[in-house]
Amino acid sequence: MSGYTLVQPDCPVKLNQNECPFDVPEELKREIVDEALASNWGRYPGFVPGEVKAAIGQRHGLGPEHILIGNGSNELIQAVFQAAVGRGDRVVLPAPTFTLYALMGRIAGADIRTVHLKRDLSFDVDRLKEESAQPGVRLVVLCSPNNPTGSMIQPEEVAAIAEAATGLVVVDEAYYEFCGVSCIELLDRHPNLVITRTFSKALGAAGLRLGYLAADPSVAREIEKVKLPYNVNAISLIAARTLIGQDALIEERAALIRAERQRVYEGLRELPGIRPYPSHANFILFEAERPVAGIFHGLIDRGVLIRDVSRYPMLERGMRVTIGLPEENDAFLKALREVLAA
Amino acid sequence: MSGYTLVQPDCPVKLNQNECPFDVPEELKREIVDEALASNWGRYPGFVPGEVKAAIGQRHGLGPEHILIGNGSNELIQAVFQAAVGRGDRVVLPAPTFTLYALMGRIAGADIRTVHLKRDLSFDVDRLKEESAQPGVRLVVLCSPNNPTGSMIQPEEVAAIAEAATGLVVVDEAYYEFCGVSCIELLDRHPNLVITRTFSKALGAAGLRLGYLAADPSVAREIEKVKLPYNVNAISLIAARTLIGQDALIEERAALIRAERQRVYEGLRELPGIRPYPSHANFILFEAERPVAGIFHGLIDRGVLIRDVSRYPMLERGMRVTIGLPEENDAFLKALREVLAA
Repeated sequence: MSGYTLVQPDCPVKLNQNECPFDVPEELKREIVDEALASNWGRYPGFVPGEVKAAIGQRHGLGPEHILIGNGSNELIQAVFQAAVGRGDRVVLPAPTFTLYALMGRIAGADIRTVHLKRDLSFDVDRLKEESAQPGVRLVVLCSPNNPTGSMIQPEEVAAIAEAATGLVVVDEAYYEFCGVSCIELLDRHPNLVITRTFSKALGAAGLRLGYLAADPSVAREIEKVKLPYNVNAISLIAARTLIGQDALIEERAALIRAERQRVYEGLRELPGIRPYPSHANFILFEAERPVAGIFHGLIDRGVLIRDVSRYPMLERGMRVTIGLPEENDAFLKALREVLAA
Repeated sequence: MSGYTLVQPDCPVKLNQNECPFDVPEELKREIVDEALASNWGRYPGFVPGEVKAAIGQRHGLGPEHILIGNGSNELIQAVFQAAVGRGDRVVLPAPTFTLYALMGRIAGADIRTVHLKRDLSFDVDRLKEESAQPGVRLVVLCSPNNPTGSMIQPEEVAAIAEAATGLVVVDEAYYEFCGVSCIELLDRHPNLVITRTFSKALGAAGLRLGYLAADPSVAREIEKVKLPYNVNAISLIAARTLIGQDALIEERAALIRAERQRVYEGLRELPGIRPYPSHANFILFEAERPVAGIFHGLIDRGVLIRDVSRYPMLERGMRVTIGLPEENDAFLKALREVLAA
């Protein structure tokens, strides 16, 4: 089995990890750090970070019993695998999607059933429903908007899959803020749904490793049992409480990224031999007529790092570029123009 | 299955979690926080925190390829379970020991074989060797000094178990600094050994969630494959690099705890109906002739929180007290004297 790896050449323009191009504002960093300095680092963080759970739940009209906080949302998705999936159990995954789900499935010894996206890279909802309804399926993981395609699944489609599914259905909404469509309201009627969110994208705190999940309290309780105690450090918990309330800031930044996404999409459409896909996230998938490797390395030579996704299923000619600051996006488009002209 | 839970009444004297009674010194906290403020929180931490691994490895005369860094050593022990243990595989655990190992085993669906400590709470090395040599044993976990008994296993005994074992042998050295005896030098000759250490005890940084493991590079590589990427946040990584070099500070504090441990041990021996066990860690296990619940709650009424371990196997009359600051230890002994006299 091979792990999740990533070799990163040093490039001044880093558009390869779907990070937020803005740092946490200086005054918020100071506020968090001052609170951290006043706390005793020698003590374990609170066993159940109730205050943070309550603040997050409130944002969604949910009580704290619906919420779990993780060391990144990945940790929580892994906890769902540990709680729900044993050796030989079936897991349904779309393809292409975020590669960590399949890795978690392999670690759990799962029998992974793949449902390819349609030719236009939209979700194949009929086949997902069909596969999710098979006996022995313990888990379905849907990333929406989907990494690395940027495509989205509609809440009514997720509801239909959750209705049909014999097990849990995780919707990874890491990129939620860039599309505004969530399945969180479905929790009421579909207790087998688990929604995950992250602080690493629109909330701009990838370095702090923070994520959360929302689920029916009975499901949250089961997942909590397999989660290690004290999984989130005390400073990140302080940051979570501070950042979760910054709705105006988050929305302002997400709006800027969405506008830039439109601009980059149009810039890509104008380029010969390049086909961008419409995206609901903070990145764009595009295909090139020319081999990916040449373009990818040509961009690196010009100081721009994006993601080569040509080894993902269906994406033999695919690359993914994160939407950055306007000047970074300009640098990317300029470098790509040069590479294509070379 | 039930998870790991802990209800903590608020007490001014908190001696229930084997924490370090000293905070990280103010000037080190400032140094760490200043470096954190200067970094971009929006970016993921380094994929492989090479510099931190190198600094830790160097401390043990090992290259960075021997080292993995975790969100607490528990995360790394769990990764060992995920890498090595599948449903139905055998895991050998002493009893009583730290309860998380059995929880991890149950999550993995392991067939857990328990080897009770001897009547004097020392490790039963012969039986451990015997059980570890059984076919199908994928993992043996030894905590030394052992939580909650304070007993220790000698490196030559661990070597004999590793020699006999059909799978991996983890030695959790979370309390190493309070005894000074390590199995890390055995790694050379026993590539199936995995040693874990933590920043949560003598290093005084439980709030930051930091641990590491040392293993043969081939074993470390396999464990790394099941570990999530970016498992340790950027601020804790900065702290790890800063704290790992503070040998003089760590030793000074550990020496004070060891001296206090001796004083508390003698204080307990003088009390009627109380039997303390000699300890190599920063806590003392003691038994009482009277029922544990009355003593435990009597201490809480007097503002002192310790750990009731009477539900652990063999410890029906057991309680565990963490060694704290001299004045905290005094408060504990005084409160216990009062409870016994009441």
